[in-house]
Amino acid sequence: MDMDELAQRVAAGERRALARAITLVESGRADHRAQAAQLLGALPTDRQALRVGLSGTPGVGKSTFIESFGMMLIAQDKRVAVLAVDPSSARSGGSILGDKTRMDRLSREAGAFIRPSPSQTHLGGVARRTREAVRLCEAAGFDVVLIETVGVGQSETAVAEMSDLFLLLLAPAGGDELQGVKRGIMEMADIIVVNKADGDLKATATRTCADYAGALRLLRKRPQDPDGFPKAMTVSALEDTGLAQVWSEMETLSAWRRDAGFWEQTRADQARYWFLEDVKQRLLARLGDPDTKAALSALSDDVASGAVDPAEAAQRFIDRL
Amino acid sequence: MDMDELAQRVAAGERRALARAITLVESGRADHRAQAAQLLGALPTDRQALRVGLSGTPGVGKSTFIESFGMMLIAQDKRVAVLAVDPSSARSGGSILGDKTRMDRLSREAGAFIRPSPSQTHLGGVARRTREAVRLCEAAGFDVVLIETVGVGQSETAVAEMSDLFLLLLAPAGGDELQGVKRGIMEMADIIVVNKADGDLKATATRTCADYAGALRLLRKRPQDPDGFPKAMTVSALEDTGLAQVWSEMETLSAWRRDAGFWEQTRADQARYWFLEDVKQRLLARLGDPDTKAALSALSDDVASGAVDPAEAAQRFIDRL
Repeated sequence: MDMDELAQRVAAGERRALARAITLVESGRADHRAQAAQLLGALPTDRQALRVGLSGTPGVGKSTFIESFGMMLIAQDKRVAVLAVDPSSARSGGSILGDKTRMDRLSREAGAFIRPSPSQTHLGGVARRTREAVRLCEAAGFDVVLIETVGVGQSETAVAEMSDLFLLLLAPAGGDELQGVKRGIMEMADIIVVNKADGDLKATATRTCADYAGALRLLRKRPQDPDGFPKAMTVSALEDTGLAQVWSEMETLSAWRRDAGFWEQTRADQARYWFLEDVKQRLLARLGDPDTKAALSALSDDVASGAVDPAEAAQRFIDRL
Repeated sequence: MDMDELAQRVAAGERRALARAITLVESGRADHRAQAAQLLGALPTDRQALRVGLSGTPGVGKSTFIESFGMMLIAQDKRVAVLAVDPSSARSGGSILGDKTRMDRLSREAGAFIRPSPSQTHLGGVARRTREAVRLCEAAGFDVVLIETVGVGQSETAVAEMSDLFLLLLAPAGGDELQGVKRGIMEMADIIVVNKADGDLKATATRTCADYAGALRLLRKRPQDPDGFPKAMTVSALEDTGLAQVWSEMETLSAWRRDAGFWEQTRADQARYWFLEDVKQRLLARLGDPDTKAALSALSDDVASGAVDPAEAAQRFIDRL
């Protein structure tokens, strides 16, 4: 298929074209990677969605939050895309958004688009592909792109590198558990959202929120934050309370960053980051070329037999390349 | 310096030559990497130390264990080297073996050699360099090389890829905390060593050991294990109890693996693994060549300005390379 035509269809908001384009960027095949690069280069660049990273460990109610938050945006005539970077899918092939029934209402909305995490590749690959899927959703005219990840390992960093705003979703918890959130992840958050502020947990949620608000005040103020940010808020995704307030704060923060020049600066830095990551991936992919692979395999046998040291063999291989 | 001569001095067991050789393999400079490859290729290959990976979270008494265990081996006229793969040193520059006073007695022994983890590079680099330091210690005639790491993230995998045996050190704990050990790490362990089986904690240690023994029996039997392995044992590094039994089981296991052919097979597979890792590192290092770096930087500016999409720019760059 012609990539310019596919780009036009994506830009026209055709869902099937978008799904097909995402499948293309998720492919690891060299010819598909080349086509994907062409496609991404042909997309309109004058549209910007609000890219929102969302992290939270299993059990904090991420799906419920995304569904309720997404439905609220849909009610405001916004188009919402939901993507995921799932570090576990790299090994298991499983996927945090794999089960669409988890977002039953949202998935049936015409203005919503939900796509599970690409699987069966390493985290770096998953992240780069999701970043390209974000670009496609943006070009397709979505107003908000939510990028979900789970609160473990390096996936937060990857999601932060493709987001304009980063939300950390937490459950109400006793004071002792506060320390369970890694400092590095807390430092990424623009808004800490304490979910489940309903029923028996309401008081605990309020206290947890206050604890995190206190912890956030101890962090050094970041230049990209106006007064009062980062902040902690409570919501009940179940009872639809607090969601409008979170959205309002997100709009305030993003407007401030646009005005202050941080928005464009961050996007430029992120583009540099992904360019370099992509160059590395493509360079390493060259080791899969048939001739190279055969040479590697022969040298690998010499290394395994002990005839050559791994470092010496690697040096020889690189010298010949 | 001539690399053949340095290799000879290392093989003669000269400590200063060994220290110098390790400094060389830890260097990231391209000319040093080439020299290191030459050096490693010139080492004798007829000596094999027992390479022992050792993991445990902070607080389980790793330093005390290594010191007591090392002193026991020294008393048996064995030469012992201690190295480290420290995932945290990659960012902070700190190092788990940085403070030699932690192993006060062992560090003063003529038959012992303690080297902190190389720092200021990413985990993959730290791991490769440590693997090469293991090779150097082996060539220098050490009988046992202990490779220490902390129980977080991917460093265990790296250490397991350079070890003949893998020990997991744990502290006595209530039954609930059992789940805190990741299944993947438990599956790597040949022997789970529950430390601090002394004083008030003795009974808890025995119970913890029984719990882990039970958990290990639930794991699928690995082909490289004789009956009864992997196993759980208690020790007190403080009171020097149980250490001889652990060593005895290590000898039993390694003898069995040698006889059954798993020893050589594992080492061959590991050599292949590190060869491929090293090729990848060296390939990526080429991006640092002055011309390449300048071209990357120019394209990166175009990407940051939005003139080109990251993927398209990466494709162009690779096509030109």
